[in-house]
Amino acid sequence: MKMRTSLQSVTAWIDDAFHALDSKAISLELAAGRSLAADVAAQVSIPPVDCAAVDGFAVCAADSIGAGAYNPLDLAAITIAAGEPMPPATDAVVPLDQAETDPCGRIALVEAVAAGANVERCGSVAAAGMLLVAAGCLLAARHIGLLAAAGLNRVAVVRRPRIRLVIAGRARSGEPLDSNGPMLRASIERDGGLVEETELGQAFAGSADLVLIAGGTGTGAGDCSAAALAGTGSLEIHGVALVQGETAGCGHTRGGTPVLLLPGAPVACLVTYELFAGRAIRRLGGRDPELPYCRRRVTLMRKIVSPIGLTDICAVRRRGAGQIEPLPGYTEIGLMAAAAGGGFVIVPADSEGWPAGSAVDAYFYDRG
Amino acid sequence: MKMRTSLQSVTAWIDDAFHALDSKAISLELAAGRSLAADVAAQVSIPPVDCAAVDGFAVCAADSIGAGAYNPLDLAAITIAAGEPMPPATDAVVPLDQAETDPCGRIALVEAVAAGANVERCGSVAAAGMLLVAAGCLLAARHIGLLAAAGLNRVAVVRRPRIRLVIAGRARSGEPLDSNGPMLRASIERDGGLVEETELGQAFAGSADLVLIAGGTGTGAGDCSAAALAGTGSLEIHGVALVQGETAGCGHTRGGTPVLLLPGAPVACLVTYELFAGRAIRRLGGRDPELPYCRRRVTLMRKIVSPIGLTDICAVRRRGAGQIEPLPGYTEIGLMAAAAGGGFVIVPADSEGWPAGSAVDAYFYDRG
Repeated sequence: MKMRTSLQSVTAWIDDAFHALDSKAISLELAAGRSLAADVAAQVSIPPVDCAAVDGFAVCAADSIGAGAYNPLDLAAITIAAGEPMPPATDAVVPLDQAETDPCGRIALVEAVAAGANVERCGSVAAAGMLLVAAGCLLAARHIGLLAAAGLNRVAVVRRPRIRLVIAGRARSGEPLDSNGPMLRASIERDGGLVEETELGQAFAGSADLVLIAGGTGTGAGDCSAAALAGTGSLEIHGVALVQGETAGCGHTRGGTPVLLLPGAPVACLVTYELFAGRAIRRLGGRDPELPYCRRRVTLMRKIVSPIGLTDICAVRRRGAGQIEPLPGYTEIGLMAAAAGGGFVIVPADSEGWPAGSAVDAYFYDRG
Repeated sequence: MKMRTSLQSVTAWIDDAFHALDSKAISLELAAGRSLAADVAAQVSIPPVDCAAVDGFAVCAADSIGAGAYNPLDLAAITIAAGEPMPPATDAVVPLDQAETDPCGRIALVEAVAAGANVERCGSVAAAGMLLVAAGCLLAARHIGLLAAAGLNRVAVVRRPRIRLVIAGRARSGEPLDSNGPMLRASIERDGGLVEETELGQAFAGSADLVLIAGGTGTGAGDCSAAALAGTGSLEIHGVALVQGETAGCGHTRGGTPVLLLPGAPVACLVTYELFAGRAIRRLGGRDPELPYCRRRVTLMRKIVSPIGLTDICAVRRRGAGQIEPLPGYTEIGLMAAAAGGGFVIVPADSEGWPAGSAVDAYFYDRG
């Protein structure tokens, strides 16, 4: 572990090891937040026929030629509601507030209407065969609505990744507190993974899309995770040039399942989850692999000092518009820096930090 | 409905009618995505005692004074793992790779260590009584981790809003397709609400935090929603100066439950959900009421024309960095505009649109 692998190399390892899983047809009702597995095209035109766009009276526009305030025309008309198919031999809708019917279903028209007026044309939303939603789209309510309008009630989405999680480290601080378990389960859930928990002894057998081991990654007497992986599979990276994750590692089980080792110190566990495990899980689920935060170019109001040779994550908080200041580091105040901050910056390994006034890219937790 | 209420007035009505619900204690394991109901302070210091920050040997720093390459000092030392409490009469940790123990548990030290070196001090993450997470925080994995480290396993969060949903409109286009139901259920779920579905006849009785009625809001023969509300409760707003939601409405049941009426046309249903119902549900759940999208100042590459007197939502797509172009309008291509676009702009009622080159605020669906 004396040779530390760069963040870039670990990221490349992850991008090589993790790809979108196979697909599964599920009910459209359950598809929000899932990644669409294949393009969906319109089977039929939407709408399938010409429809009224407003409530009113369906008429034949040609019959209205010559209508005027001094020449009201008496026209055959059919009461129609917005969304209903246009009746045969009609091609325009006179809005409800612009005419009244007599008991015989005729209206007096004081203005000519154009053919197609207030009609939603067949295929105007999408012609048959047109791409509705592309593969890889993370389905939101607007896509669900469009697909439902297209007549779909099932849709093929990328299967949810199954994550075998092992909390392997000793409890911190001599207390029986496991903060990594709840934190990782919430993180995996956010990224669309399904958690199956087990012990280190069972970690490398059976099926899963990723084995995630938190803790016991160091070289101390009680640290067994890296040795366990090396013993039953392959430990391919151990030691990362990252201040908050120097003991992280990667490898494969004998059966070929990728394994990620996250340090047990809570902050290092969080940071390496975000940078490594989250990326892996998002890739498996067919999602955008990048950090799920808002990236913005902002001005740093106080300097950040960072060790050369190691990538460093620094918690920041917003000040004025487009301005941030660093918080006391993760090393000093642990998870408090993550919880109290509005986001973070990533200081590359070849940088000693930045002076006040620098323009830097920050990741913000909120949509800001 | 001839007098249309401004978007601002509807928003003010919503802000007046909807407030954060009462709180409920739940397991920390289930708290991700929920709004914290009250400030949480540290009950004890974190960590509760001085701990080793790295794997190594716990020593008394004073014993190391005078150690040097030409004067190695033989010291009593206790092997310790990162996170373990410091043993009595020790105050520094010599990292594992800087010394070796002999069988008697002593190490040879070639450099003096400072008191506190590689020790995580009691209370360094948070002193007892310090605010850990503030009320109103939307709990993410990093907060869950911090609260777990503080020894909490339950936490008080704002109760999830119960939404009584009625799909009241006729099926569109003469087809038995309900696209509003799946779309609204996905939207309500995203905003943290719980859906209970019912018929219009049962909409105004029983308990709920919001009654949401989609469809039947117009003035046509088959439009019953507004009349039903006016008949059994109060219809306080009906008709909004919004291109994609002219028939929206607001009111209360006789029992005092707020009611929102969304138009049945799919695009109008989506837009009024986003602007009105989503805001109401986010307020009930103690979330940020603003649109859950990334707002950015961008340059418009083609003009947008919009009717004066009505707020207008225009779908847009990204072009170069910081540039957008408008898509064909919601009026022309319906939900397709929402599904195909990367976001939207809101053209105020007093604007006729903007020329190409204008700097405008756009809402983007992705974190971009």
